[in-house]
Amino acid sequence: MTTDAGVPRSPGRPRSTRADEAIVDAALDLLAEGNTVDALAIEAIATRAGVGKATIYRRWPNKVALLRDALATLKGPPPVPAGHSIRDDLVTLLGPVGSHEDPRATRIMPCLVPEIHRSSEHYRIYQEMLEPRRQLMRDVLRRGMASGELRADLDIELTMSLLTGPVLLQRLLHWHRIDEHDLPERVVDAILAGIAIRP
Amino acid sequence: MTTDAGVPRSPGRPRSTRADEAIVDAALDLLAEGNTVDALAIEAIATRAGVGKATIYRRWPNKVALLRDALATLKGPPPVPAGHSIRDDLVTLLGPVGSHEDPRATRIMPCLVPEIHRSSEHYRIYQEMLEPRRQLMRDVLRRGMASGELRADLDIELTMSLLTGPVLLQRLLHWHRIDEHDLPERVVDAILAGIAIRP
Repeated sequence: MTTDAGVPRSPGRPRSTRADEAIVDAALDLLAEGNTVDALAIEAIATRAGVGKATIYRRWPNKVALLRDALATLKGPPPVPAGHSIRDDLVTLLGPVGSHEDPRATRIMPCLVPEIHRSSEHYRIYQEMLEPRRQLMRDVLRRGMASGELRADLDIELTMSLLTGPVLLQRLLHWHRIDEHDLPERVVDAILAGIAIRP
Repeated sequence: MTTDAGVPRSPGRPRSTRADEAIVDAALDLLAEGNTVDALAIEAIATRAGVGKATIYRRWPNKVALLRDALATLKGPPPVPAGHSIRDDLVTLLGPVGSHEDPRATRIMPCLVPEIHRSSEHYRIYQEMLEPRRQLMRDVLRRGMASGELRADLDIELTMSLLTGPVLLQRLLHWHRIDEHDLPERVVDAILAGIAIRP
């Protein structure tokens, strides 16, 4: 039974959760051990996971799709905004930006930066992995614009970069000499208020 | 005649600009060719520059100091704020963030990210290289706070991360789907104004 990129799993075949987890774990282990995305072969992932290559290809059409799911697993499920306050929802969504509980993430994430820079395929893995989280943030910003809490003429994508940029840069590289405690709260409050005295 | 870390050049010895440039160029070439900071040996830099190791050590006490100067050369001199408008000065200072005319920079900069993450020495190279630019931005923010254009209670280091974070992330990785034209202007204006409707 063949599959294609749009339908990676054949509907009659129940997903084998244990094999999925072993494959994703193997991919993450290999990345954490210093293998680049380029160097990472499906064969090596299969060997490490103790499955055949065909088992992987039945579940994922290609390496990009597998790595996107593996990185999404590493990040865990996106947070759920409570929906009461725009400010609190933005803080909730910024909470996991650049932050991971899985110790493999601190080895994998910074090493991916040069790869993302070199390769449009790696860039796409990240963008696809992050898209559901971004959509949640877009929804909160649109809600705030509709309710009159936020400026009605916001550039939504720019606003997302204002919110995530400082948190990601700081957590990834500790770039500025700032207290990283409560960083999402402090970034959200500063961006909401602005730094200028308004006339 | 010996030198130490604080006084890398002996005062009686005129600086040989041509040798300095050749050494800095050699270091940047080797980094751009994919050598890591760890792998980069003073001996290899000397060979490439056509000078002896002693010539390098007369000018720089160690590899960190040499690389800090090499990266500063790559970035070029910091921009000079005109001093008329806080907004325009911030735009001027953000202009070169994550942006380089030297084609070697696009090969070197992203590759340094994982190195910065792994090594406190590499982190220090970057921090020392950026410090004069940061001081310029601190001065502009303090001027704005004193003049009443900016909020008097600003967290200056946090504000710097709000300004540079989005620009650096976008120029380094094209992270968000935003128009990168006039990005410093748009980031500065958005951070000055804030995104909330003020009561």
